[in-house]
Amino acid sequence: MKIVRINTTDGTVTEQALPPERAHYGGRLLTSTIVAEEVPPLAHPLGPRSKVILANGMFAGHANVPCSGRMSVGCKSPMTGTIKEANAGGDAGCYLGRYGIRGLVLEGLPPDAEWRLIHVSDDGIKLLSASQYAGLNNYDLVEAVRRDMGEKVSIICIGTAGEQRLSAASVAVTSADGPPSRHAGRGGTGAAMGAKGIKAIVVDMKSGQGGPIADEEELRRLCTEFARELHESKQVLRDYGTANLVNPISELGALATRNFSAGTFEGAEKISGEAMRETIDDRGGAHGRACMPGCPIRSANRYVCADGTVVDDVEFESLTLLGANCGIDDLDAVAKLERMCDDFGLDTIDTGGAIGVAMEAGLLEFGDGQKAIELLAEVSKGSAIGKIIGSGAALAAQVLGVRRVPAVKSQGLSAYDPRGLKGMGVTYATTPMGADHTAGAPIPNRPGIGELNLDPMDKQDKDLLSYDLQVMTGALDALGVCMFTGPQVSTVEWWARIMSAATGERWTFRRLLQVAHDMIRTEIDFNRRAGFSEQHDRLPEHFELEPLPPKGPVFDIGDAALDGVTGSLTVDDRVPDDQ
Amino acid sequence: MKIVRINTTDGTVTEQALPPERAHYGGRLLTSTIVAEEVPPLAHPLGPRSKVILANGMFAGHANVPCSGRMSVGCKSPMTGTIKEANAGGDAGCYLGRYGIRGLVLEGLPPDAEWRLIHVSDDGIKLLSASQYAGLNNYDLVEAVRRDMGEKVSIICIGTAGEQRLSAASVAVTSADGPPSRHAGRGGTGAAMGAKGIKAIVVDMKSGQGGPIADEEELRRLCTEFARELHESKQVLRDYGTANLVNPISELGALATRNFSAGTFEGAEKISGEAMRETIDDRGGAHGRACMPGCPIRSANRYVCADGTVVDDVEFESLTLLGANCGIDDLDAVAKLERMCDDFGLDTIDTGGAIGVAMEAGLLEFGDGQKAIELLAEVSKGSAIGKIIGSGAALAAQVLGVRRVPAVKSQGLSAYDPRGLKGMGVTYATTPMGADHTAGAPIPNRPGIGELNLDPMDKQDKDLLSYDLQVMTGALDALGVCMFTGPQVSTVEWWARIMSAATGERWTFRRLLQVAHDMIRTEIDFNRRAGFSEQHDRLPEHFELEPLPPKGPVFDIGDAALDGVTGSLTVDDRVPDDQ
Repeated sequence: MKIVRINTTDGTVTEQALPPERAHYGGRLLTSTIVAEEVPPLAHPLGPRSKVILANGMFAGHANVPCSGRMSVGCKSPMTGTIKEANAGGDAGCYLGRYGIRGLVLEGLPPDAEWRLIHVSDDGIKLLSASQYAGLNNYDLVEAVRRDMGEKVSIICIGTAGEQRLSAASVAVTSADGPPSRHAGRGGTGAAMGAKGIKAIVVDMKSGQGGPIADEEELRRLCTEFARELHESKQVLRDYGTANLVNPISELGALATRNFSAGTFEGAEKISGEAMRETIDDRGGAHGRACMPGCPIRSANRYVCADGTVVDDVEFESLTLLGANCGIDDLDAVAKLERMCDDFGLDTIDTGGAIGVAMEAGLLEFGDGQKAIELLAEVSKGSAIGKIIGSGAALAAQVLGVRRVPAVKSQGLSAYDPRGLKGMGVTYATTPMGADHTAGAPIPNRPGIGELNLDPMDKQDKDLLSYDLQVMTGALDALGVCMFTGPQVSTVEWWARIMSAATGERWTFRRLLQVAHDMIRTEIDFNRRAGFSEQHDRLPEHFELEPLPPKGPVFDIGDAALDGVTGSLTVDDRVPDDQ
Repeated sequence: MKIVRINTTDGTVTEQALPPERAHYGGRLLTSTIVAEEVPPLAHPLGPRSKVILANGMFAGHANVPCSGRMSVGCKSPMTGTIKEANAGGDAGCYLGRYGIRGLVLEGLPPDAEWRLIHVSDDGIKLLSASQYAGLNNYDLVEAVRRDMGEKVSIICIGTAGEQRLSAASVAVTSADGPPSRHAGRGGTGAAMGAKGIKAIVVDMKSGQGGPIADEEELRRLCTEFARELHESKQVLRDYGTANLVNPISELGALATRNFSAGTFEGAEKISGEAMRETIDDRGGAHGRACMPGCPIRSANRYVCADGTVVDDVEFESLTLLGANCGIDDLDAVAKLERMCDDFGLDTIDTGGAIGVAMEAGLLEFGDGQKAIELLAEVSKGSAIGKIIGSGAALAAQVLGVRRVPAVKSQGLSAYDPRGLKGMGVTYATTPMGADHTAGAPIPNRPGIGELNLDPMDKQDKDLLSYDLQVMTGALDALGVCMFTGPQVSTVEWWARIMSAATGERWTFRRLLQVAHDMIRTEIDFNRRAGFSEQHDRLPEHFELEPLPPKGPVFDIGDAALDGVTGSLTVDDRVPDDQ
């Protein structure tokens, strides 16, 4: 497998084999390693010394390995200034794997203001002009590219948010059934790609499979069984998607509501997974869609608004940040906001956070879905208020003079209020990525390693729980596989068996966790060299000072516990026996 | 002398005597000490645990002590997140001193959205409603206050920028001859005051003098001599103001031009002190005005535009950041921009930096003074683009996607390009305030302590020069006296003699420097606890990577030298003999 470096300054393309000792490097492990080794920590995220790395994982291209085609995008974040990895589903990871590509590295700065695209095909990897696509949003862009280059392409691209280098701009990846609805959303990956002048990466679809496998038969056997288990155990995701969590999190009293000023949203029922499913059924949408080839979980849906607008996959975070957090209980309005984010290439989480902040600042009323749609439309127009909203929650708060900033390291909180889900608060505070639930999500009843107190409002054990979920999720991120296969002990054990079959080496639960632990420590070390200290691993003060209605919890996990997660905890502490 | 605490939550006013061991605490020494001791380092700058301290100095109220009525405003900066002190001239410091007040501390958060004012008079200190003044800018505000409360008042106030809690909002202080043209400009002091709901502090003028003096006769003798020396040695400031530097700095090749992309401005002559003086003479303006009672330097002017607009005091930083840095060589346009900043309550430095960034982003053309005026007018209107510009250069750069960010710790650089004036670069990088020339300004030929290489483009000795000027300037800031009395060895020696006469204790050059050194270390310690590390004591990478036309220097002072300034250098190193 190889890494391909594209120098955007002079247009040269260089291929480089992955060294044997790094044969397993992929996904977040590859992006974070390259950022840590090659990007000066004080480089400007949009400057000439920054790099953008797009990496798939070990099993990309092998459609029989379930959920294995995730696409990681790594860089120094334009939003946070920390190291950054965000990953997306979609089909690009799979097809890139079939060209023997583990990673693409975008380097330098373009010599002019022209947009370019990278075309990956059997003719090699070429940098082409994309000026005809300038100013297009993602939906129009993929349609135009398919018109020009054929239907059989997978596309990684940015919309107008990335073109403007907005801090909440995402990188979109086309879903297995076509639309650009999968996003490496967090931290401004789209801005980083935009700074490199790359509008799209177009990958010709290709049959075959990905990298070499040591024991194909054993791999097939394991994957068949694992896929069956995933299919059977994830019925709720197929039925309701991640939206199944809206009602329970609101009932728990931990759902971001009106800029994190309440934990229960009186309109939760109307934007719940159940309500959505009913509406989808009434209007002829779809459930149980796969975003990447060979997914047995199929958590994606297709929502249809009353006016016929089709929205590809409305997920929990979008429903809640764009919904409850903005006081909006109109499902169609929320779905349209999500569709606009996908189209413009914007992180729905930080966009919802920014709109909530704008509402707190009085620019519009909480609950006004129509005004929120008008406000969001400004992002694509490039207006000043659009740029503020497209810069995410933390920047919007500073520009608008709002003191309740729902962010850590300048990245917006996900929709789980850390006062009601304290383990999530630990993850927000301590992950090197800035607030990010996907870095290790202690949602209710999700177990860590061993017997831990899972009561979400009890502070006991939440540092351990966050650590466990961060390393287990990190292991999945490093393999480029979907976190919905886990993260839990049994899942990581599955992946260890699959890794053993694929590589012919002995991979264990412990070894995978050690890789993840080391990867996270590499990321923390980059952040330290970039000027981040333990003081940045804290939640904003109002989560400690202001009890969350209706149940009244505050975030009360002490600094020492937080610092243990990034400092003293090790895999050896958490996995006492060699598993 | 006393400190007065105003609790904005419940309206209580508490007086507290300065303890004897802190009898000399004033100005920046008092504000930084209170912030460091009382504000949690991770408090939000606009939140309930932050405080705003307004402090005058040891000699405030004694009009015969030259230049001694500076007003410091300290807080945790809404712009930088660091500790912050900015100080202004004007007459408020003097009159507060005559009420026995060394400092006012604004605490808590108001219970409602009403604006209030603090009235200091012989009837005591009262918190009154100021809702009738909401939405007024500084010029209208002081007129309205004088209409309502009498002409014989000195006023400290915020305009619409501070009301909006914009990160570049300043605190204005009325000048000795009336207009609100003196500003504690840097770092968003106006936003911090705005968050406390305080629109103005109105001080009835009062005769008499300030705090107790041990040897009045000796003080009078010293001050008479010192004032004569200042008057004689500062003729250039009286004739041309600080604007005398425009031409020489441009000729040196170190003048911020078009967002710091060049060091010589072809239009420098047209916005120079010489051109301004000629225009002032032609149009009936004034030179040599004192901003505070008893100033023998009198660097202020009054400029008159062709259309009759009167602008109180056009200074070097305003001329250059709003002029050369925006490519504007139209003196009337620059003067109007400065007038608008004073009126709205905005730092001219960060505002000029932000407009330059907006020009680099293509929102308007470099050199278009009329469009710049229209853009700046948006700040007072509260529009989105106004809020971006009013947030300063660093935030504007991030929102507008500009990678050449002229800022350190998110505070905009002054108009001295650090490539051409390397000692200034050291100060920008290392002062705990964020980029700030007033923290210790190695402008050409300004000596430090002992024999140092003063060649501004030679990196040798610039760490020592910056350290020397930071501690000498810090000593003046701690005394609440004007830095235009120095900063140089002989000036600090003067102040030591004056301190000895005032206190009856032995004050020396070394002792004053030690106070300043300790004060700066206290500030650095606060910053460390707030999450700032040595990695923040760096210039943006483009100052190292991109040579500055026309002479081509880069900033090439290494990290070790920078870290010495904040770490290992001591007064003992720099003052080998006990002076």
